[in-house]
Formats: sequence, C-alpha cells, structure tokens
Amino acid sequence: LRNGTAKVAILGASGYTGRELLHLLARHPAARAEVVMTSREGSVPEPPELPSDPVVDSLDLRRLDGIDVAFLCAPHGASARLARQVLDAGTRVIDLSADFRLRDARLYAETYGEAHPARELLGRAVYGLTEHAREHLEGARLVANPGCYPTSILLPLLPLLQHGLVDEGATVIADSKSGVSGAGKALTERTHFGNVHDNFLAYKVGDHRHLPEIQQQAGTDRIVFVPHLLPVFRGILSTLYVPPARGTTAAQARACLEEVYAAEPFVRVYGTGLPELRAVVGTNFCDIGVAAAGDRIVVISAIDNLVKGASGQAVQNMNVMLGLEETAGLR
Amino acid sequence: LRNGTAKVAILGASGYTGRELLHLLARHPAARAEVVMTSREGSVPEPPELPSDPVVDSLDLRRLDGIDVAFLCAPHGASARLARQVLDAGTRVIDLSADFRLRDARLYAETYGEAHPARELLGRAVYGLTEHAREHLEGARLVANPGCYPTSILLPLLPLLQHGLVDEGATVIADSKSGVSGAGKALTERTHFGNVHDNFLAYKVGDHRHLPEIQQQAGTDRIVFVPHLLPVFRGILSTLYVPPARGTTAAQARACLEEVYAAEPFVRVYGTGLPELRAVVGTNFCDIGVAAAGDRIVVISAIDNLVKGASGQAVQNMNVMLGLEETAGLR
Amino acid sequence: LRNGTAKVAILGASGYTGRELLHLLARHPAARAEVVMTSREGSVPEPPELPSDPVVDSLDLRRLDGIDVAFLCAPHGASARLARQVLDAGTRVIDLSADFRLRDARLYAETYGEAHPARELLGRAVYGLTEHAREHLEGARLVANPGCYPTSILLPLLPLLQHGLVDEGATVIADSKSGVSGAGKALTERTHFGNVHDNFLAYKVGDHRHLPEIQQQAGTDRIVFVPHLLPVFRGILSTLYVPPARGTTAAQARACLEEVYAAEPFVRVYGTGLPELRAVVGTNFCDIGVAAAGDRIVVISAIDNLVKGASGQAVQNMNVMLGLEETAGLR
Amino acid sequence: LRNGTAKVAILGASGYTGRELLHLLARHPAARAEVVMTSREGSVPEPPELPSDPVVDSLDLRRLDGIDVAFLCAPHGASARLARQVLDAGTRVIDLSADFRLRDARLYAETYGEAHPARELLGRAVYGLTEHAREHLEGARLVANPGCYPTSILLPLLPLLQHGLVDEGATVIADSKSGVSGAGKALTERTHFGNVHDNFLAYKVGDHRHLPEIQQQAGTDRIVFVPHLLPVFRGILSTLYVPPARGTTAAQARACLEEVYAAEPFVRVYGTGLPELRAVVGTNFCDIGVAAAGDRIVVISAIDNLVKGASGQAVQNMNVMLGLEETAGLR
Repeated sequence: LRNGTAKVAILGASGYTGRELLHLLARHPAARAEVVMTSREGSVPEPPELPSDPVVDSLDLRRLDGIDVAFLCAPHGASARLARQVLDAGTRVIDLSADFRLRDARLYAETYGEAHPARELLGRAVYGLTEHAREHLEGARLVANPGCYPTSILLPLLPLLQHGLVDEGATVIADSKSGVSGAGKALTERTHFGNVHDNFLAYKVGDHRHLPEIQQQAGTDRIVFVPHLLPVFRGILSTLYVPPARGTTAAQARACLEEVYAAEPFVRVYGTGLPELRAVVGTNFCDIGVAAAGDRIVVISAIDNLVKGASGQAVQNMNVMLGLEETAGLR
Repeated sequence: LRNGTAKVAILGASGYTGRELLHLLARHPAARAEVVMTSREGSVPEPPELPSDPVVDSLDLRRLDGIDVAFLCAPHGASARLARQVLDAGTRVIDLSADFRLRDARLYAETYGEAHPARELLGRAVYGLTEHAREHLEGARLVANPGCYPTSILLPLLPLLQHGLVDEGATVIADSKSGVSGAGKALTERTHFGNVHDNFLAYKVGDHRHLPEIQQQAGTDRIVFVPHLLPVFRGILSTLYVPPARGTTAAQARACLEEVYAAEPFVRVYGTGLPELRAVVGTNFCDIGVAAAGDRIVVISAIDNLVKGASGQAVQNMNVMLGLEETAGLR
Repeated sequence: LRNGTAKVAILGASGYTGRELLHLLARHPAARAEVVMTSREGSVPEPPELPSDPVVDSLDLRRLDGIDVAFLCAPHGASARLARQVLDAGTRVIDLSADFRLRDARLYAETYGEAHPARELLGRAVYGLTEHAREHLEGARLVANPGCYPTSILLPLLPLLQHGLVDEGATVIADSKSGVSGAGKALTERTHFGNVHDNFLAYKVGDHRHLPEIQQQAGTDRIVFVPHLLPVFRGILSTLYVPPARGTTAAQARACLEEVYAAEPFVRVYGTGLPELRAVVGTNFCDIGVAAAGDRIVVISAIDNLVKGASGQAVQNMNVMLGLEETAGLR
Repeated sequence: LRNGTAKVAILGASGYTGRELLHLLARHPAARAEVVMTSREGSVPEPPELPSDPVVDSLDLRRLDGIDVAFLCAPHGASARLARQVLDAGTRVIDLSADFRLRDARLYAETYGEAHPARELLGRAVYGLTEHAREHLEGARLVANPGCYPTSILLPLLPLLQHGLVDEGATVIADSKSGVSGAGKALTERTHFGNVHDNFLAYKVGDHRHLPEIQQQAGTDRIVFVPHLLPVFRGILSTLYVPPARGTTAAQARACLEEVYAAEPFVRVYGTGLPELRAVVGTNFCDIGVAAAGDRIVVISAIDNLVKGASGQAVQNMNVMLGLEETAGLR
C-alpha cells in the first residue's frame, strides 16, 4: 500500500450494505473510500455527513486506477458482470452479492433462476468467512463475502462438524430470526411499517437462497433452515438444534467452540448465559452460547446482519487481504 | 343459569390475564363479571372503562353465593389454595395458573420447587385445551386452563401424533417466540423497555416450566422446547420441526389437521401460506400452516397468548362447561 | 329500515380505513355491509375472516338498489365524482375523503391543487364531527367525515372557543403526533419500516392539508398546526397550547369541557391526569385532559386515527343519520 | 497531561449515562477511564467488552491521585456531596447530575425538594452548554453538564434570543419528545415495556425540573415546556414555536442560526428540510431546522439524549477543559 493507506472503491453505495460500508470506512485508520458510486439516487435524504453526489450509472474503469480493492454491493447477476470488468482492470474484488458464494454453476442457476454470468470466475473465488478462510484470503483477488444467515449459522456449526461432535445420521435444525434491514431498502409490502411492526413470521420455508450456501460450506445436506422476520431493524439470532454425536455433551461442544475461537477478535463464546441481539448490534461480533435441551445441543448465535453479516466482515476480509490489522476500523 | 346469564367471579384481576378476562366478559352476551377481586392496587391508572375499586386481599366466600364459575388468576401455589376454598363453597373453578395442569404431584414439586398445595384435587382437574377436552369439560368442576406455549404447540401437534404421522423414534423441535405480556406486569429487568425493544433472545432453554406440561399432554418426552422473547406485546408464534413417520408428506400432515379441525370455530388451518402473528393478535384463533423443509415437516402456529393462550380459552372453556354457545363473547 | 337492519355499501375497501369499516360493521348489531368494492387487489393476503373477492373497478350503480348508505373510501377527487353518482342513484353518502370537508371551492382548489369535481354538492354536505353536528346529520344525504387530525383538535378546542375561554388576539398551537396508518398502505419511503422504526419527525410544517379544515371549523385563522410521525401504527395525540381569555384558568377550561361532553358516549374528559395513546387505541373514544403550564392552558387529546378519526366516526354518523342507537357497533 | 493522555474517573458507571461514557472513552484517542466505580451491581449482564468488576460503594479518594477529571453520574443530592469531596482532593469535576445547573440555591430547593448540599460551590460551577460556554470551560474546575431537554431547547433558542429575533412580549412553546432512556434503568411502571411500546404521552406538564434550568439559561420566564415520552430508546426531538420579533422571518432565523453555528463541529443547521431523530441517534450532533407556520417560526432540533444530551457533551466539555481536540472521541 502506498502511504500505508488502502484506496478502495464502493460500487453500489446506496443500499443499506453500501451505506454501512461507507460508515465503517469513514472510521478506518488505514483505508479510504476513494471511489463511491451508486446506481440510483436514494430518495431518502442522507444525513449531512454522508456523501450524496457521486451518482454514476455506468462504471468508468479508469476511475479504478490506483484502487487497491473494490467492494461490489450490486444485485446478484449484475455483480458478477461488474466483477469481471473490475478484475480485468486489475483491481481486487470483494463481492457482497451472492454471485460467487456457490461453487457450482448449475446450483447457482437452480437457486437464482438464471445462468451464472461469469462461470469462469467461480473457481477463483474465495468464500470469505474470515475466521475459516484466512489463509486463502491473503492472496485472493476475488472474495465472495458470505450471506448474513450463513455467517450466523456456519460460525457456530463448522467447528462442531469438523471435530466430529455432530451426529451425521441426524438433521441439524437452524431456526433463524432476522431484522428487516436484511430485506433492503426496496419499497415492498414486506417492508411496509404496517406489515412488520407488532408482527412476526416465517418466510421461504424450505427454499431460501441461503440454504444451498449453508449446505455447501457445511459439507452436508442434513440441515433444515427456516428464516423468520423480526420487528427490529438490525440483527440475526439463530437457534441451532444440533444432534450430538454419541456421548457428546453441551459442555464439550462449548469447549470445542471456545478452543477454536480462543484467539479470534470477533467471535465471543459465552462460558455461561446466551447471547441477546442487542449485545452485537452495531458491532462486528458473532456471539455464541451453548445449552442442553433434551437430546439436542442448542447453540445460539447472534450477529449484526449489516456488520458481521455483510459490510463488517467485508472490511475484515479486506484487512486480511491487504495485510492490515484485522480489527482495523471494526472496534 | 338463571335468566340465561352466567354469573362469574374473577379472582386476581389486576394482571394482564385478569384484565383481558374483564374485557372479554364485558362483551359477552351471556355472562357477567359479578365479583372482581385483585390482591393489589395496580399503580398504572386504568383507562376509565375498567373498574378500579374492588381491591380485596382476602376472599370473602359469601360473595361467591350464586356465582356459576370462578376464574382464578392468582400466582401458582396461591391459586391451588384458593381453588380448594372456592370448590368447597360449591363454585366451579377455571384456574388460569399452572397448579392443575400437571397430573403428577411429584413432577409439580420438581417443576415448581414446592409441594403441591392441594394434591387431592389433581385427579379431578380437566386439562382445558378446549378442542381436545370438550367431552370432559361439560361436567367439570375444576378446569386447568392450559399454558400459552403449550396451547400453541399442542394444537398443531396432537392430531399429528394421534394419527401416527410423527416418527416416534425421532425428536420434535418446538422453537417458540412470545411477546412480552407473557412475562406479566411485574417490574423486572426482563420487562424493562430498554431490555426488550430492539432486542431478541432465548431463555430458559431446556428447563422452561411449560415443557413438562407439553410432554405430559403429548404423551412423549421426545420434545425439545426453546422459548424466545419477541419485542412485541402480544402473541406467540411456534415453529415446529416434525420428523415425519415413514412416507408422510407435508400435504398429508396438512390434510390431517384440516380434517381434525374442520368444524372448529377457533382453529384455522391454512391451505396455502403460513400464519403471521398479526393475523391472530386480539383474537381467540389458533392459525396453523404447514410446509416441507428437507426431511422435516415444518408446522407453524400463531395465537394471541393473552386470548387463546389464556383468557380467551378460559372463556371458551366456560362456555362449554355452562352449555353456552362456544363462541359467545369471543368473536 | 327494512327489518331494522341497515344495508350499507363500502366503496374502496382495500385501504386501512375501508378495512376498519369492515371490521366495525362485522360487529354491528343493526347494519350489514351488503356491497364491498375495492379498486385494486391488495397484495398482502388478508386474514381469512376478511373478504378478498369483491374487486371491482367501476361501480355498477344497480348494485346500490336497496342500500341505505354508502361509505366512500376513495382518494380525494375520485371520491367527489363517485359521490355524485351515488347520490344521483338515490343513496345517501358518508364520504371519508377530504372532498366535502371544505365549504369553499376556491380553498379546495388551493389546498388540493385541482378544481373541485362536484362544486354543486359542497353546499349540501354536513361536516360530520358527530358531537357538534347531530342535529344536521339526521336528515343529511351527504356527510363529510372529518379528517383525523381535525377530529383530535376540534373536539377539545371548539367548546373553549364557543364559550369565550380563548384569547382571540393570540394564537393556538396544535402540536399533533400520529401513528403511521394515517399515511395509508401505499409503499412509500415514508412508510418503509427502516424509516419509521426508532425514528420521529415533523412533516408538512405550515402547509398540511388538514389546516384549512381545522381553521374553517374553528372559525379562526389563529391556529398553528404541526403534525409529527410516531413509530406506532395507530393513534393520534394532540397537544394544544391554548392562550386563555383574561382570567380563565385550566380548571375552568376543564369544567367547560366536562359540561359540554357530560352526556357524550365517546368523549371522556379527565378529572385528573392526562390521556395516553393506548387508552384509546382500538376504541371510538376521544380522551381529553387539561393542565396549566405558564401562561397557557395545555389541552391534550387522544384518539385512534382509524376509529374516531375515520371509520368509527363514520359509523357513529351513520347511526345518527339512520336513527340507530348512536353507540351501536362501537362499544 | 502526562503522555498526552487524560486520566479520568467515572463515578456512578452503572446507569445509561455512565455506560455511554464508558463507550465513548473506550474510543477516545487521548483519554482513558482509569477509575470506574458503580454504587450497585447492575443486574442485567453487561456485554463482554464492558468492565463488570469495579463495584465500589464508598469512594476511596486516594484512587483519584493523578486523575485529571472525574465525571459524576450519581443521583442529584448525592452528586453534590461527592463533588465537594472530589474537588477537595484536587480533581476537576464534570457533574452530569442536576446539582450545579441552577445558580440559585432557593430555586434548587423548590425544584428538588431539599436544601442544596453544597451551596458554597454553586458560584463556581460553569454551565457546560459547550457551544455557549467555551471561554469559561478552559479554566473550570466544576462543570455542570446540561440536562438533555435543556440542551435540545437552548441550542436552537439562545441565538434567536440573543440576536433579538424573538418577540419578548409573547411566549415560546417548547414541545419536546424523548426516548425512554431518559428515564434511566430504574424498574418503574413508566419504563415497563407494556406501558411504553405502542404508547405515547405527555408528562409533568408545567412542572418538569428542567423548566427552571431552561428559563435561567434563556434569561426569560416566557417559556412553556411540555415533555412527552416516545416509544423509542434514544433521542429527543423538540418542536419550538417561536413568536418572532416584528418583521422577523423564518429565513432570517435560519440565517442567524447558520451564522452562529457555522464553525461548530456538532451543530448542523439545515438549509432545507427538517431533522429526524435517526439523523442524530448515536452521534453528538444537534441538528436544527427552521420553518414558518402561521405567525410562528417553528424551529425543530434533534439530539441523542445520551450523547449530546449527556455523556457526549460531557466528553466535549472535558476536551475543552483539558485543551484536547474538541471532537476527540466524538466522531
């Protein structure tokens, strides 16, 4: 990095994810958003401290000269096409869309209803669940930033699977609850105040697009995932019902998680008690608690879907990619 | 009934449950709250239409002369002692506390941490999940009104168990989410606005007092139950993960529920779609939807915890006990 | 009325106001919604108990045969044209839009930005603030149902003005706060959950369309009105800062309101204390409290904007127009 | 300052104000909380990143050796006694209680119902509305941090008064709306979720303790102040109805505010539009907008009551007192 400061671009800055990135980078001691582009003018006036001018519809690649990494916050499909351009221009990419999360183009087509627009890049993408991808991130040129639900489910689940603490013949249940910001700024019936406030509901039971992503990373299909919509703006709390491998106790599961994440700056495994949403809102933490219930181990995780579940993890990935302090801009 | 109007007493009217009973009975065409007693003056002023005077600490049994049924809304323990007095005075009882829900005094002692204060009555109590208890309610003198979580879980689950659609060798997961009114009017850290608003959490994982009640009524221990606290005032939505008996599909489970509840005025099984909290808040309905997810059948139910989960079901039980129209006062 | 039951039509039933009317009429002992028409299919599925079929875009006037009164819930402009048709067909009209609230066609044009589509009807419309219009309602064929903010402001203010308790040389301030349902079901930035939840704001300061309506009915221009948006769904609370006529005390203002509204079933003047929103939500009440603050009398009113502020008052007006019990369907 | 880092003490760290101070100081580049004392153990577990150990009931003054400034977050009365001890020990004080905001001991006694416990200090206290107190803050040893409502009202009002834009013969109305955190962590009926959520109300009309503070600083009694409780956690929005001096327009009032605050880092005067609560929540900004309505100028201000209305302003005052960058720790 020249002068020790990373120069970054945000392509698609008008949504919640892009806005959160702008906030985080504004506080980052070693990175600077040099190029900020949105595809449409947001109609809600931004608070004065946010930039409102740089509205650009088509990317002028010359603007990426000297940029160290570009964050893509475009819709899926569009994002992959943009990624190809940016990579061709020699700039590294952290893609916050779903376009590079699935390794299998056929599964992508089934899940997203269209052929993958940049299949040749699928093999090059690193799945950026930072704590489990660090060694691959350092040289990566294309990082697929994980989905919010997958982040909340994989962080507590992967160590248990990898250490053989899960009964492979049984099914893991992931019952997740998310705030409304996960649905974005679009004006839909689903996000109208009258339909969210004082309400609660499950949606896309059995066919949410994050399920293939979770199953791919977990390496098993024996996961059932049901997302729900909470009447809050930010945060995801996932309740996992884990069938233990023979003889495994909740205490052993907790010990495993504590060991795996002992040195992690952004994963907090609780010795006692269980995480609440408000403990993580506005932070890049993933908090994890463990309890026993009947013949299941109940593992509860909480993240801020816009931070650890999106823009915070993207910055964390950037920090690792560029050799910066991993926690820079995230405390 | 004299004059076709039931005379009822509410003992313990200051809590949310008692207040809801007052509201329901105020609109009931064939019942009248003749005796209303609270054990302490509520410090929040009631809206003008609610009575605020009758604050009585010790029950004068003579006031029950001519009363057809007494609703007990006292804390557990106290409620059983009160029930004995009221029954001895010749008045029928609908108890909204937990005191007569468990049939086994030893299990009660384990669950509630004290010996049951009226063991001799346990055998006489009818568990008042109305749709499954109607034949026993008619002659009943003591009805145990079900808990809110158990109501939301048993109504969708019992038919599936009774018709052999559940894999008996596997575990049913019940992930429930409740509004704050379930925690009552007590001033606790848990109910402080600053701890509920914009928050979400699981509590009493593995040892909530409603679990033995659910297991007893379901006739199986293979149920895991995790309650959560929603930042809303009213309503419970339960997501059940049902392991199907060999070959059973979600469509068959739905068909079973539709058939069992076809004539029920207060259970609505959805042909398509899934219930949301707001569809039932303020009503005595239990709405049920069914979907498939992996190797599980997902059954979602929604109730208003203060109505179908407490006072509404109590009125429904009263209607059946006294031979009134079952829906009277509940539409 | 034939058989003692009023037959009514609801034209424009898909919005919050129309839906509330349907709910109220479903419980009305002496009225029945015979014709229910919406201009567009609501995309949020209605709870099962609500009709979803009758979607009609153009009114077939023959369907109004035998209808006693039609409620119009159409947008302003369209509503006036519809009113003309319905009146010509011989059916009485209660119009919930703004079209007949202003008596002066020029003021209407200034306020709504278009010429009034049915000027010839303006002179015939009765402004239906029920408590102050009863004698004119009985024979009325066209009733202008008041706006929600005006209802909340005029009910506490009119008696004070009429009894000379307000300093005519000074200005009345009306600082009003409304829930989001006042903005309707339209998908706008303003009603997106992310813009309402945890937020609060003033809007249309100095030029809200309800101001001319308030000033016309109050008979004075010396009223300043600022509406605000609360992060709740229902309810309006208005704080009025009334400059008292020489020597008038808050106690005298309260006494005046108590006397004027002593026999009113839906106006509750508090002897002590002040109304809160939740005391009126879901009811047709207007609660009023009075306090002294410096050299002003502070009068606070609370209503449910969808009930007393719209559909409830419309039913109350219908009851008076048709000679039914005024409180029928509203308790 | 030794090593360029201020050493600070927080006395009374368990409430919302103390907790916010801890958060702000944890991010401050040039200050460190060396001594943190609470008077009682908070029963809600703190998130892991917050200290939970230093629970001390009586102050050991030796712990203040080397401390540059102590923030007092104790209840009024207790705070004044503590201030005397701390000042005697040679440590400067920023008092977040109300104890040193009123200059007149008699007014204090009337307002708080008890004699002032440290009258001899009243003359030495600087009222720390930073933007209007900077010159006095530099040498100050005792700073009275302003109340939250007064901050939201005085920042927009003082310049208009000082520049003669307000009609002195008329009354300013301040209609303020605050989130619940202003009521603190105490378990009261007022802060129970069931009493706040979906509710809104005015309280202490005419006799809130912040009124004398506002009037003293404004230098006039012609201010009417009505506080209201919003169903949100953080934030105050105040709507001021200012009677203009002859001929003064809203544009002139805005121009005056823009000029006075042109160089201020934490006051943002809007050229167009009006502030919303969410624009300031979590920040130390006071946002101000101006509009015309009838014969009044409407001035709207928004702050975060826990930041600019309490702990943020306290840090800002500390920065000025100690010669640090005024915005340090507050961006």
